[in-house]
Amino acid sequence: MTSVSIIGGSGYGGGELLRLLLSHPNVEIKQVTSRSHLGEYVYQVHPNLRKRTQLKFSDPAALEPVDILFLAQPHGEAQHHIEEYSKLALKIIDLASDFRLRDAAFYEQWYGEKHAAPEWLNKFVYGLPELHRAEMATANYISGVGCNATASNLALLPLVKADLLDTSSPIFIEIKVGSSEGGAEGNSGSLHAERANVIRTFSAFGHRHTAEVIQELGVKDVSLTMTAVDLVRGVLATAHAKVKPGVANKDLWKAYRAVANENPFVRVVKEQRGIYRVPEPKILAGSNYADLGFELDESNGHIVAMCAIDNLMKGASGSAVQCMNLMMGWDEAAGLEFMGLHPI
Amino acid sequence: MTSVSIIGGSGYGGGELLRLLLSHPNVEIKQVTSRSHLGEYVYQVHPNLRKRTQLKFSDPAALEPVDILFLAQPHGEAQHHIEEYSKLALKIIDLASDFRLRDAAFYEQWYGEKHAAPEWLNKFVYGLPELHRAEMATANYISGVGCNATASNLALLPLVKADLLDTSSPIFIEIKVGSSEGGAEGNSGSLHAERANVIRTFSAFGHRHTAEVIQELGVKDVSLTMTAVDLVRGVLATAHAKVKPGVANKDLWKAYRAVANENPFVRVVKEQRGIYRVPEPKILAGSNYADLGFELDESNGHIVAMCAIDNLMKGASGSAVQCMNLMMGWDEAAGLEFMGLHPI
Amino acid sequence: MTSVSIIGGSGYGGGELLRLLLSHPNVEIKQVTSRSHLGEYVYQVHPNLRKRTQLKFSDPAALEPVDILFLAQPHGEAQHHIEEYSKLALKIIDLASDFRLRDAAFYEQWYGEKHAAPEWLNKFVYGLPELHRAEMATANYISGVGCNATASNLALLPLVKADLLDTSSPIFIEIKVGSSEGGAEGNSGSLHAERANVIRTFSAFGHRHTAEVIQELGVKDVSLTMTAVDLVRGVLATAHAKVKPGVANKDLWKAYRAVANENPFVRVVKEQRGIYRVPEPKILAGSNYADLGFELDESNGHIVAMCAIDNLMKGASGSAVQCMNLMMGWDEAAGLEFMGLHPI
Amino acid sequence: MTSVSIIGGSGYGGGELLRLLLSHPNVEIKQVTSRSHLGEYVYQVHPNLRKRTQLKFSDPAALEPVDILFLAQPHGEAQHHIEEYSKLALKIIDLASDFRLRDAAFYEQWYGEKHAAPEWLNKFVYGLPELHRAEMATANYISGVGCNATASNLALLPLVKADLLDTSSPIFIEIKVGSSEGGAEGNSGSLHAERANVIRTFSAFGHRHTAEVIQELGVKDVSLTMTAVDLVRGVLATAHAKVKPGVANKDLWKAYRAVANENPFVRVVKEQRGIYRVPEPKILAGSNYADLGFELDESNGHIVAMCAIDNLMKGASGSAVQCMNLMMGWDEAAGLEFMGLHPI
Repeated sequence: MTSVSIIGGSGYGGGELLRLLLSHPNVEIKQVTSRSHLGEYVYQVHPNLRKRTQLKFSDPAALEPVDILFLAQPHGEAQHHIEEYSKLALKIIDLASDFRLRDAAFYEQWYGEKHAAPEWLNKFVYGLPELHRAEMATANYISGVGCNATASNLALLPLVKADLLDTSSPIFIEIKVGSSEGGAEGNSGSLHAERANVIRTFSAFGHRHTAEVIQELGVKDVSLTMTAVDLVRGVLATAHAKVKPGVANKDLWKAYRAVANENPFVRVVKEQRGIYRVPEPKILAGSNYADLGFELDESNGHIVAMCAIDNLMKGASGSAVQCMNLMMGWDEAAGLEFMGLHPI
Repeated sequence: MTSVSIIGGSGYGGGELLRLLLSHPNVEIKQVTSRSHLGEYVYQVHPNLRKRTQLKFSDPAALEPVDILFLAQPHGEAQHHIEEYSKLALKIIDLASDFRLRDAAFYEQWYGEKHAAPEWLNKFVYGLPELHRAEMATANYISGVGCNATASNLALLPLVKADLLDTSSPIFIEIKVGSSEGGAEGNSGSLHAERANVIRTFSAFGHRHTAEVIQELGVKDVSLTMTAVDLVRGVLATAHAKVKPGVANKDLWKAYRAVANENPFVRVVKEQRGIYRVPEPKILAGSNYADLGFELDESNGHIVAMCAIDNLMKGASGSAVQCMNLMMGWDEAAGLEFMGLHPI
Repeated sequence: MTSVSIIGGSGYGGGELLRLLLSHPNVEIKQVTSRSHLGEYVYQVHPNLRKRTQLKFSDPAALEPVDILFLAQPHGEAQHHIEEYSKLALKIIDLASDFRLRDAAFYEQWYGEKHAAPEWLNKFVYGLPELHRAEMATANYISGVGCNATASNLALLPLVKADLLDTSSPIFIEIKVGSSEGGAEGNSGSLHAERANVIRTFSAFGHRHTAEVIQELGVKDVSLTMTAVDLVRGVLATAHAKVKPGVANKDLWKAYRAVANENPFVRVVKEQRGIYRVPEPKILAGSNYADLGFELDESNGHIVAMCAIDNLMKGASGSAVQCMNLMMGWDEAAGLEFMGLHPI
Repeated sequence: MTSVSIIGGSGYGGGELLRLLLSHPNVEIKQVTSRSHLGEYVYQVHPNLRKRTQLKFSDPAALEPVDILFLAQPHGEAQHHIEEYSKLALKIIDLASDFRLRDAAFYEQWYGEKHAAPEWLNKFVYGLPELHRAEMATANYISGVGCNATASNLALLPLVKADLLDTSSPIFIEIKVGSSEGGAEGNSGSLHAERANVIRTFSAFGHRHTAEVIQELGVKDVSLTMTAVDLVRGVLATAHAKVKPGVANKDLWKAYRAVANENPFVRVVKEQRGIYRVPEPKILAGSNYADLGFELDESNGHIVAMCAIDNLMKGASGSAVQCMNLMMGWDEAAGLEFMGLHPI
């Protein structure tokens, strides 16, 4: 068994990682740290794990060497400790945003502060298997992905790979998100009485995850608009773009099917009947799938490209486990078999 | 007291109209029809009206003359009966979509069928007071408004009135809607277990309400994208457009404030602090306000213009009552005083 | 116009009071205090009030004399300041729990601490009009009501008034509540991601509101069990009790109708058809109604008595305004006309 | 591989069964029938199964022999066809209510009609492993369980097994349920706009599942009260009873722990800290666990016993798979490993 530890296990991303690793056939969890819940059973914070583990949260200062170290801390922590972490484990997977961008100046532009360990930026592979599967096979350091960036990148991936986008037109990506994106800490607006029933466009543009779309897809004129809706888990990205002149539905089908065929966790959802004709995050809770769909207005080339994911799975912990599998040469889907529920 | 009757009182729009008219200082409800609930007390269908009225649903075939007739039927009914209705009442307000478009060919283009009473199209004033207040003072026939069209039209109204839009760029309007838009009949996808927790982009473009935006604002390259979210009442339109070169935040503030000053039910919501910084439909349930907001990306002229309404109020029955007030020369806000709730 | 001020206006009870008083025909709001939001517009905290008032939160230390003073502070504050408050206003209505119980020892038993102003306890009338309407006409001091106590007291009121209860059997009251009961401050369990979708029996017995049921109804063997469900506003009390031998459905109908006839805000809901056959809080949001219902198992005398209210209205601010109306000799329903919404 | 078929695969119970059997290590699904969706891919109805199976719904008239036959039809169907079904498979597991009761007269009393195959009633074992594990090892026919009956039976099981209940006192079981209990067909009250935000006590007593509690636990004076709340999956039973004189918390702990130790899918939840101190269905979505808890009022012997389950899992399809495992001598937990999600 490969030994793994998690730094920062009491947040939502850490809890989801725990769930996945506890049922993973190849790994054994050695330590899970939490300062605020030190000494508590992990199931007291993540009640779904009751009767499945007797692990307790340990002190991050008492970490022992391990095969793989997962970092599930708030943004901005890992870059200050990466040197010490690298002495504890040969392989590191970070779920936070510290090592997602390759360029220090680009990082500073989007995060408004200098990176604390710029020399590490190029050691990390960006953690989206659909874009970096081959590199992961030989990587030791893999970054996390932004959940909104992932929904955006996968929505547009078939169009970019098949070179169907009219890149002279701006791309507007409208993203609707559930409350678990806000994390286990929350703020005054996260209170149920304020957050329930909302349709709240809390960020019109300028969201940090935009940087990951620019870097990974090479698109320039792209904006992400964030709207909170009443749901706990789930993201839907609805991207508005223009296709190149002459691009027709058959070209799109070909492009989407190609991506779905190459990637075990990508599905195309575009049905003519039934209730579930388009990608929807609700049926993805707990699953690692990214469901893609599209509609083309052939009269003007307007394409509406959609991607639905569970922000805590494909948008965070699920992708991290998928990355681990690829990094270790294991079955890409190991530990990620849960299909999602219907109804839910 | 002015006498009013409602044809089609068992649907959601009819119920809301009943609520408003029951507390209106100047009117008396004479008849409310429903075929499917004939003879039942209206409070058995609309339980909020219990202890407020002993009205029963009556037969549409037994309608008596009245001062004002409200039509709250499903789309496509009124155009077949408008001649007979016009003999029952001097003034008619239709909530459905039968008389919203002025041009029969344009109607056919969007509704896919010939209009049954094209000679009546020009007798109706489009029922949005913010666009047709003056005409309403002398009108006898006023149409309804599409709820999604209203959110879209009001989101863009300040930009159009102040001529700030770059009309050479396409306008993408992303609309998020609650389940009451689907009406009291519903379909398989309206079942709670399927409709709860959804983020479902059920129409990428081509929604019929688009026609009302084109007609009323004179914009040409506009699309409405519809996404169902988990909420009962409420619509948020988030419009993406480009402003003309040189347009700055101060121009926008001026344009938005002007519209809010001229219209008692328009408010500008753009705060720097607190939870409620942007327009949100949740606090508008039962109120007739349209809350407008905007964000301008000065680097590229991208404007995100928002409008939140209650689809059954400002998007349907509330606007209809406001139109009645204007048509009758009454206080524009009579019967529409409810402020909405917080929290909810 | 009668002048009123509110101490503690930024909480949910205070906000609802503001909404009601702003549309009340006989009063003028002089001051609204809040330490945490000092100087802010009240609409920045209660966004439904935008365009309806330009009031700002003022300093509680700068209160001026007024006709009626409303206290909407957290529990335990008012008892320490009641002497000074009584110098500011001849009439005081407290929404908190400080002056609900008449007996200092009983208070200590349920609140676990000595009361700071026991000599004031007997000056207050318990603020439920359905029980103390006559006394209110001459009162200067009226207490608040616990929302769960109110749902419980009104569920059982017809049975107690008509002496139909078998008091030798225990009464179990199962109460389901929305999240606004938790207040605007909240706790870790109030976070949307944790509070959404819950059915959480957070208090099996021993809830403080039980004391108000014992005091007001004179029942002894009664317990309240509290379960949080996914809703913002609303309480449903489902009381299980035994009726005296021989009590039949017709006796119950008579008892319930009598209470509904005597009280403008009480309705009986017991239908044989339609969707809304029993009391339900969802249609009561914003309304001051208490909807009562019952089912009797004639085989064993088991009665299930139900009461639905909006916890912020009939369970708090609505009752407070109703008390003010009675105390001032005004129309009991003034300012409380809103009917509630359907659907919602 | 053992071959299995499902009759009635398009409902919620059938869909959940499909999900579980598709990932079960020992079985292969041969046929899944549906009249209304004949010829459609199962993933068009159960969208979570996309990319996991290419099965299509087949005609129930074309069923082939198989090792195990699952019946997931509406109530009242199976009893008319059990003879023919028994010729298709040696082993049958029925999810409906047709074969849950052992006594034909008792069946008629609760279902209001004569049973069509009374001679089959005694061939079936009641499908709750926690009560009939040993018999299942040699059974060929296993019945389904009512979801509300299961929550009730498991809530009381430790008290009954340890003989701690005062059976001279009535037992009131308050059950709160999500919308998936209503099934995929629904009714007018199942429409999202009507069903959202509800707290609806739709059955005060007399629910058919009561019969299963009486039969299985041997209690006599028991009633189930059903309240619909806003949730898709989940049931919480909160049972009010009296314990025998002298029974203390330590006796209860012993009784509950014993049941949890004997049953892999039973957990005791009774924490002093954290958010999740009591059983809650929300974290059980998709899992087969039954979470039990209790609170004892030592002053009067009032016990509040709780059980939370996912109605489609432990309350239906999960228990059915657990029964299959026991009937076949397989690992009791095979195919039922999913832990549930947090947050959700």
